[in-house]
Formats: sequence, C-alpha cells, structure tokens
Amino acid sequence: MKICAIILSAGKSNRFNSDKPKFMHEISGQQIINYNINAVKKIKKINKLFIITSSQNKKYFENIEPNIFIQNPLDGTGGALKQFAKVNKNFDYYLVLLADTPIFEYKILQNFLNKSISQKNDVSVISQFIDNPEGYGRIVIEKNSFYQIIEDKDCNAIQKKINLVNTGIFLISKTAISNIDLIKRNINKKEFYLTDLVSISKQKNMRTFAYINKETEIRGVNTISELNELETLSQIHIKKRIMNAGAIIHSPETVYIEENAKIEKGVIIEPNVVIKKNVSIKNGTTIRSFSYLEDAKIGSNCIIGPFARLRPGTTLEGDNRIGNFVEIKKSKLSKGVKANHLTYIGDTNVGKNTNIGAGTITCNYDGKNKLSCKIGNNSFIGSNTSIVAPVEIGANSYIAAGSVITKNIPKKSFSISRAKQKIYKNRVVK
Amino acid sequence: MKICAIILSAGKSNRFNSDKPKFMHEISGQQIINYNINAVKKIKKINKLFIITSSQNKKYFENIEPNIFIQNPLDGTGGALKQFAKVNKNFDYYLVLLADTPIFEYKILQNFLNKSISQKNDVSVISQFIDNPEGYGRIVIEKNSFYQIIEDKDCNAIQKKINLVNTGIFLISKTAISNIDLIKRNINKKEFYLTDLVSISKQKNMRTFAYINKETEIRGVNTISELNELETLSQIHIKKRIMNAGAIIHSPETVYIEENAKIEKGVIIEPNVVIKKNVSIKNGTTIRSFSYLEDAKIGSNCIIGPFARLRPGTTLEGDNRIGNFVEIKKSKLSKGVKANHLTYIGDTNVGKNTNIGAGTITCNYDGKNKLSCKIGNNSFIGSNTSIVAPVEIGANSYIAAGSVITKNIPKKSFSISRAKQKIYKNRVVK
Amino acid sequence: MKICAIILSAGKSNRFNSDKPKFMHEISGQQIINYNINAVKKIKKINKLFIITSSQNKKYFENIEPNIFIQNPLDGTGGALKQFAKVNKNFDYYLVLLADTPIFEYKILQNFLNKSISQKNDVSVISQFIDNPEGYGRIVIEKNSFYQIIEDKDCNAIQKKINLVNTGIFLISKTAISNIDLIKRNINKKEFYLTDLVSISKQKNMRTFAYINKETEIRGVNTISELNELETLSQIHIKKRIMNAGAIIHSPETVYIEENAKIEKGVIIEPNVVIKKNVSIKNGTTIRSFSYLEDAKIGSNCIIGPFARLRPGTTLEGDNRIGNFVEIKKSKLSKGVKANHLTYIGDTNVGKNTNIGAGTITCNYDGKNKLSCKIGNNSFIGSNTSIVAPVEIGANSYIAAGSVITKNIPKKSFSISRAKQKIYKNRVVK
Repeated sequence: MKICAIILSAGKSNRFNSDKPKFMHEISGQQIINYNINAVKKIKKINKLFIITSSQNKKYFENIEPNIFIQNPLDGTGGALKQFAKVNKNFDYYLVLLADTPIFEYKILQNFLNKSISQKNDVSVISQFIDNPEGYGRIVIEKNSFYQIIEDKDCNAIQKKINLVNTGIFLISKTAISNIDLIKRNINKKEFYLTDLVSISKQKNMRTFAYINKETEIRGVNTISELNELETLSQIHIKKRIMNAGAIIHSPETVYIEENAKIEKGVIIEPNVVIKKNVSIKNGTTIRSFSYLEDAKIGSNCIIGPFARLRPGTTLEGDNRIGNFVEIKKSKLSKGVKANHLTYIGDTNVGKNTNIGAGTITCNYDGKNKLSCKIGNNSFIGSNTSIVAPVEIGANSYIAAGSVITKNIPKKSFSISRAKQKIYKNRVVK
Repeated sequence: MKICAIILSAGKSNRFNSDKPKFMHEISGQQIINYNINAVKKIKKINKLFIITSSQNKKYFENIEPNIFIQNPLDGTGGALKQFAKVNKNFDYYLVLLADTPIFEYKILQNFLNKSISQKNDVSVISQFIDNPEGYGRIVIEKNSFYQIIEDKDCNAIQKKINLVNTGIFLISKTAISNIDLIKRNINKKEFYLTDLVSISKQKNMRTFAYINKETEIRGVNTISELNELETLSQIHIKKRIMNAGAIIHSPETVYIEENAKIEKGVIIEPNVVIKKNVSIKNGTTIRSFSYLEDAKIGSNCIIGPFARLRPGTTLEGDNRIGNFVEIKKSKLSKGVKANHLTYIGDTNVGKNTNIGAGTITCNYDGKNKLSCKIGNNSFIGSNTSIVAPVEIGANSYIAAGSVITKNIPKKSFSISRAKQKIYKNRVVK
Repeated sequence: MKICAIILSAGKSNRFNSDKPKFMHEISGQQIINYNINAVKKIKKINKLFIITSSQNKKYFENIEPNIFIQNPLDGTGGALKQFAKVNKNFDYYLVLLADTPIFEYKILQNFLNKSISQKNDVSVISQFIDNPEGYGRIVIEKNSFYQIIEDKDCNAIQKKINLVNTGIFLISKTAISNIDLIKRNINKKEFYLTDLVSISKQKNMRTFAYINKETEIRGVNTISELNELETLSQIHIKKRIMNAGAIIHSPETVYIEENAKIEKGVIIEPNVVIKKNVSIKNGTTIRSFSYLEDAKIGSNCIIGPFARLRPGTTLEGDNRIGNFVEIKKSKLSKGVKANHLTYIGDTNVGKNTNIGAGTITCNYDGKNKLSCKIGNNSFIGSNTSIVAPVEIGANSYIAAGSVITKNIPKKSFSISRAKQKIYKNRVVK
C-alpha cells in the first residue's frame, strides 16, 4: 500500500502581522511546519512527503524537504489537490495536512490512519469537540453517518450549535481522489474547497468517516495571539509528558520547556526555569529557579542554579554543582566538578572533582579566535582567577585567588600571580 | 463648548491595608490616579481637569495637578458635585471620574463623550456587562430607556439578576447639574449619592444614557487582591497591544511589561522577562528570558539576555549583544558593541564594534562621586579587566585580561597590568 | 477529655511515579505529611499524635514522630482503626487524618473538632462542595441528617449528582469506635472501609455529622499532576495571607513563596520572585524581580534585586541595597551596607554603611575549610577586589579597585595590591 502525506503551505498569512509566514514561527522551540514534517516521518506507513507551496513561499523549504510541489494558480485547498493529483496518481491514500495546523502528537495521525484504512473509508477527516465552535466548519452527521462539512457562515441555526468541528486534516483514498475534479469553485471566494469532497463522495456512496480527536486540541494559527494560545497548549502537553514520566515541576505555569527535552524520572524542576532545545537531564538532578538551559547534557544528581546558564555544548557528567550566576559553554565538566559563583567557563575540559572558585573566568577569546583550556582532576582554582586560553592546568594543582594564569601549570603545583598588598595607615578620613 | 473633567479622590481607603491611599499605588508601573489624569489629557475636547479631594489627601496631589478642589465636609459623591458645582457653573459638561477606577484606554472615554454629547444627553453613565454583578449598582432600563441606578442592597429579586452595571463614571450636562441640589441625603450612610441624579433627571424628562463599555473591563480597587486583579487586566491589555503591533511574546503570562513600553513589530520576547517604565525596543531584537529592562533604548537586531539588566540611561545603538549577568547603567553602547558575560558598565560611552570581555567592571564610584569612562571603536577589553574611572581608552586598542586600568590608553595601544605568574612544583598534595 | 490524632500513612503510592512515597514530597517547601503533623501540634486539645504506617514505610518516620503504630496486615482504613483501637482504648475522641491529604489551615481542624465535640457527635466527617464530584465518596443526607457515605462507583444516577463529598477526615467518639469491628470487609477490594462506620453508627442511633469546609479545598494527592494542582491551591492560600497582611505582590502567579514566609505590611514584591523556607521581610522593603531568597532575615527599607541571591544565614539589618547578580551566604550586613553588582559575600560580617564595590569576592574557601572575614563600618571596598579569608578590614578603610587582600587592614587605612599598568603604543593593528 502506498501512502503519501501532503502539507499545504501555499496560503498567505494576511492576518499574521509578521514579515515571514506564520508556519515559520516557533512553538515551544520548533517551527510550526516542522511539527507536521516530524510527525509524518515517525509514521512508517507513509512512503512519501510532499509540501505543496506557492512560488513565493518556496524559498522557506529549501533546507527542509526535497519534495516540493508548486501550486499555481493559488486556487484553494481543493485546487491544490486537483493540481497535485493530476501528476501524482499512483498513491492508495493521500494524507492532507496544513502547514499552519501543527500536530503535537504523531500518534493522533497514526491512529487516524490506522482506523480509516482498516475501515476502508474513502474520505476521512479528523474532527474534535470544542466549546465555542464559532468560525469552524461543522461536522454534519446524518443517519449515523458523516454527511458533510458546512462552513460556519453557511450554517443554519441548528447547525450553528454543532460543536463537532473540522480540523482540516483529511485522508483520501485513490477512489475518492478520482472525484476531485467534481469540486466546484466557491461562489464568494472563487476558490476550490477540499471540504466539498465529503458531500461529493457521499453522493457517490463512498465511505466517509469523521475521526474524533480526544487528545490535545488541534488548532490552526492565524494571528500572533493564536500563536500564543497554541504554544500554551503545547507547553501543557510537554509538561504533562514530563510529569507522567516521573519528574516534578513546581509552579509549572512559570516553567517553559521546549519540545524535545529529555527529562528523567526523579528530576525536580523549580519555578521560573527555561529549558530550550536539546536538553537532557538525568535522574536525581534538581534544576533550581532562574536557570536557562540550552543544548546541554546534564548527568545524575546535579544541582543546577539558581541563576545557572548552560549554553550549547555543555556536558555535566554528574554530581555537579553549578551555582549562582555561572555560565558554561562548549565545555565538559567531569564528575563532581563544582562551579558555584559568578563564573564563566568556555571551551574548557575540567577533570573530576575540581573546584572552580567564585569569579573564575576562562578568557577563551583573544579578539580573533576562540581558544580552549584543560584543567585536571582534583584541582583548586582560587577565586577571581583569570585563565587565559590556551592553557593547561595539571591535576591536583592549586591556584591562588586573584591570579591571572597564562602559562601551563604542571600537576601538583601551586601557582600565583599577584601584586603585593600595600597598606598606608591613617590615610583615609571619613 | 466647555467641558471639565473631575476626578473624585476624597474617599478613605478603609479596606485597603496600606499607609498610603489606594490611588497612589501602581498598576503596571503607573500610579492608579495617573491613568485617569493621562486619559483626560489626551482628549482635546476637555478644557480643564479638577481633582476633588479631602484636606487630608491634598498632599498627594502637590506635584501632580494644580486644579485642586477641597471637599468639606466629606458628604459623598453627590456632595462633592454639589460643593464643586456651586462655584464652577460655567461648564457645558462635567465628566466625573473616580480616583480608584483607572481607565486604561482613553478611547473609551472619548467615545463615551462623543456619543453622549452628539445625542444631547443630560446624564450619561458608562455601564458594562459583567458575569457576577453582586455588589454593583444595576442599570435599570425601562421602556427602552435608562431609568435609574439601583444599589445592590436595594435590588429586588429580579433586579438582582441584572448584569449591566454602573462603573461610576458620569457625564452631566449644565442643565442636569442645576438639579444637583435635589439629591437627598441617603438615610443609612448619611451621604449624597451622585447615582440618584439619574432618576431625578428622568423625572424632569431629561435625557439619560447608559453607554456600554465593551473594551477592557473598568473596575475599582478596594483591596490589595483587587489591585492584583486589575493589574492582571492591565497586563493582558498591554501585551495584546504589543502582540497586535507584531511583536511575539512567548508564555506571555510570565512576562511583565509596564504601561508605556514601545515595542516594535518583529521583536521577540522570551518567557520570564520584566520590562519596566520607558523602554523602547526596535525591530529584529530578541529579549531573552530573565532580562530586566528599565528606562532603556534598545536598537534593532540586538540579542539581550538571558540575565541582562539594563538600568536607566542605557542606550544600545543596534546589533548589540548583551549577555549573561551583564548590567548596564547610564551608558551608550554604539553599534556592534558586545558585552557577553558577568560585566558591569556604568557611566560609560563605548565606540562601535568594541568587545567587552567577561568579568569587565567599570569602577565608576570612588566612594564620593560617580565618574565616567570613554572607550573607543574597535577595541578589545580583555576579560576580568577593571576600568577605574575617569579614564579614556582609545580606538583600536587592546587590554590584556586581568588588568586594572587607571591611566588613559592612546588609540592602537596595547595595555597590561598584571603580576608575573609564579609556579611552585610539587607543592600541592591531595 | 482525651483526644488523639491519627495519621494514616500505610497506603502504597501506586499511581505516584516516584521512588519515595507521595507524602514525603514537598508542597510549597514543606513535606506533605508535615502539614498534618504541624496542624495537630497547634491544637492544644489534642493530647497525642500517632502515625499508623506499614513496616515498609516506617523508615520515613524515624526523625519525624515517635508514636508509630504499625498496621499489619494492610487491610484498609477501617482495618487500620480496628488494629489501633484494640490497643488504644482510653481516648474520648479519635481524629483520623490522611498522610496524603494535607490540611493547610489548622483552623479548619480546630473548628471541626470544636463543633463536633460541642454537639456531642459520635462520627463526624469533614465534607466539602466541589464542582466535579466524580470519583469522590458522596455525603448522603436524608431527613436533614447525615446518613451515609457512598463510594462513587456505588452511586445511583441521583447520588452521582451529589456534589457534597467526603474528604476522608473523621472524628470518632469512644462510643462509636467500640463498633469498629462491625465494619465488614469490602467484597471487591478485600479491605475494611472506615467510611462504613457512618451507616453502622446511624443504625445504632448514634449522632453523625458532616462538617462543611468552606476554606481552601482539601485534596489528596495521587499523581504528580495532582501534586501540582495542590501546590497551586497552597500558593494561592499563602499569597492571599500575605496580601491580606498588607504586602503587595505584582503578578502573583509568577511569584513562588514557601509556606512559612513572614512578610510584613508595606513590603512590595515584584514579578518572578522565589521565596523559599524561613524568610522574613520587614516593612518598607522591596524585593525586585528574579530574586531568590532562602532562610534569610531582611530588615526594613531594603531594596533587594533584581537578580539577588540570599542564601541561608543571611541577615540584612535594614536600609540595605543588594543589587544585580549578588550572592550572600552566612553573613551579616549591618544597616546601610550596599553591595550592588556581581558580588559574592560568604561567612562575613560587614559593619554599618560600608560600600562593597562591583565584582567583590570573599574567598572564603581554601579547598579544605570555610573561613570568615570581618569588615568594619564606613569602609569602601573597591571594585573587583578579592578578599582572601581569614582577614579583618578595619573601619573607615579604603581598598583600591582590583586588589587582592590577604593581610588585615587597620582602621582608617588605604590598601592596594595592583601591578603597574604598562602601555605599548602603536602595537595593535585592526
């Protein structure tokens, strides 16, 4: 069986006040369009993915997906399928998704496909119950059968009250797609509506099916405010997943976690934490408030923050303590390393159990290049030390507070760079 | 046509547990009383603004508004107007506002005035529908006409269910104000109620009008909890305005933005950001989480934060990068200047494209005076540098990490102040 | 009269995805079990407190409470009371609490006891109205009398609609407890249900009573999501208490305050603040955003933050200014001390009106021991100073910026440790 997925992205973002199309904006750290691309990729049944777009929007897909189909003219969702099906006839099923309507859970799609196909339906749509259906196309069920989709403005008083609505996501069989040319141009909008395929198929005695989604609500984005509402739904979904896995999040509504975070059971997250892309946190670790983590691997039994900033390329092996106002970037801290106060560590490899004093700064940039440092096991870096890269500090060494380190230090050495303290008595009168 | 606005502020704040009156507290960074003062000032039609207050509250208006009218005795809202109108007869309309009921959108007032005056109404009130009307004066409409305002405790069972309520904001014509002395003292409270003017005017066949507000709900403040509820409404209003203008705010409920922020289209604000008074942000700039901005001008295409603190008097010209744990005060950073880590810049002017290393501190206070620094274009300030003001650092100069700079540095110079690093081998045994 | 309180904690936490039992988790900084232990301790009427637990859970109570009673076998809430009453017959009343159902306000318990005892009731239960009663045991009132508790699954259609529900908290008289053995094993679960004692007592013409809680809702915890919901209730309760006392909290939903904070009237708390255990804040102090306070005493008229980190053992005497990116630990700052930027003060005593410059670090750890410092009154610590403990700095002294201080400084002295600044002209070409 051959199934293709199609993402419709030719529409204009007229109501979305931005210079780039709405599907390029991010929700919980992922571009809207990518939710559907990734969902499709997770479903093995689907053989091929196409993006239908306009010549104007084409540029946004250059680095994303090779199978681009240009819709021309821009004659609506029905028009898109007409143009596409004319040259892509060899699929058994066509899954139609919308670029501005991200699916956060691929399993919704998978269940929809499985159920529709096993029941041999010809036109299936994902529908859902919502509290306020105003503005949505309604799912009309007659004699226990999915009969048609009526746009909000065409609803009579009784239909207005239907709160089972169309999400715009369709699965269309080869047989049904052969009727695509029967869709007529809408009188007002001069476009072809894919929703009309339901009643057309029904008239031809084909099987139609309204799958009901009961997971996270599926919504499209038209304005920046709607982007926020959708992100709120996405955040609830992400944090629920993490809490179900056994992590504890305090005041979750103040915590922001991007979509692909891997957070194990036993992790505790305090209020007011931001976790961006590609973060993994192992069990027993606590992330304290006002921490901002990004593209970082955090081992077990660490205490991170408050006020910790882990930047891309940070690896903490475990049992680490990253304290207040400490920033780490492209560095590996081995087991037991502590950096508790006002520190910047960049491009540095730190050995086991080394203690980094307050105010330590790795000077990893000379104005032209980024340079790296290496610090051995069991060393003690005194407070307010500047470590001027490139430099190597041996294991079991000790640096006195306030030093500027420019030369390598052999293991078991004591190093100091400090001017003598002078005291002038009775010189200050206050 | 002569119109005056009157803000009633003679009341006591008995239920508000604070040493200063409730109208002096802030909502979204502005004192409650100032919302109405500013709204009135924006309406050109209004010729004069009066504050009616008590001799006790008078002191709070010394720096705010010159037209003060002292109410004595304190005999209610009706009493205030009686006393005032006796000596201020020459206005065509009297707009009556309440000190504890801030109007966030002056356009509500403007529309109210325009509609009331064009319809030649004599007593107009702003009303609004609310879900739970308990405690509010109800707007009684009889025969399609605004008939009277009934206090909650005087309502019968049917009137209790009316959810169109009085906000306390009135517009009264010259004709209607001439009847002000017909208001009788309320039997229980021994005060005169301005609301009684509605039924009095109705009996005299004057035109009464209940304008219905459909914008942000208008509410008074009686307790600290109500102050918070009103601030929540104000925050929603502010962020909606900013998002409609084309800025994107992630997790907006964790972001706090004060009332007069100017944020352009294309700006992105991450979760957990605080933007206080007098901040402007130009397009293309991202404000990352845990940033606290106050009285600062931020140019285009900057990345601010996370953990950035911009204090009053900061100007960033554009293309700036202000990073983690960096504080800037009364300083101008020209285009392309970067200060990425653990830095304090105060009273300093920095030239184009200069790079400020991690841990740099401008020592701008000598215990008595604040002193200033100047840093030229294209310079490189090494990490952990102390710049002791007053000092000038020329363009294209380079300071070695860990230096203390006390003397001026000519352009294209290299400067260093550093003790020699000594190494004592085999001195540390762990 | 002899009253004992019993906390049932023998149950398993099957649905709570954690390695430790749910009652050991924290809500607003206090372990769930401790809410009930502390509430009981505040009620003088209660003579003795017992924890009924399993041999498996026993270890969790080793440091908490000496009166442990092991339930064996684990045969339900009724079984627990059967086993317990057999050997503890000499109480007039038995108050039964649940380990996973914390009471945030001890006054609810106190009122419940007072009312039940004064009315001479034999079996009393705390009940409450809730919007969605699904899953809860319903309180069945017949002929104006509390008749029985019916489990959700045993309810008929009419009973399903009852929204007065059982919280699981009982007060049982000596007379009623003598009938405890009449409770029969539940057919499905094979356990004894304490709720059955209501109908048994009713049949014996004893007095039963359903006390209705109208304060903060009482809820049990079964899942991590429910832990969060309960913490949300707890946070609302805590912040309401603080606002009623006259403190102002901006955007309270972004502020997290643990249970035992003492915050006076006149304190202002900005958005995004975290206040952990054992914090007291006196009047006139403002806590600015992104501050994290823990086990700290803060005097009057301080400005703390933004970005302040007060760690355990901090005392601020008053009129202090703790600024951006400043961390204080186990230190006392006398009146008027200021530390405004990028500073770490640990194990240090600072005298009145001393100014701590930006970037100052007390080097209080030598790799083995924590050492302490003393700084006198009216001193000036220049920026970027490292103070290497142990050291004493006399009153009215002055330290030049960038110094490393290792020797004591007498009062009225000027001290400096700094390498000479060298300048090499025309050495940098950019």
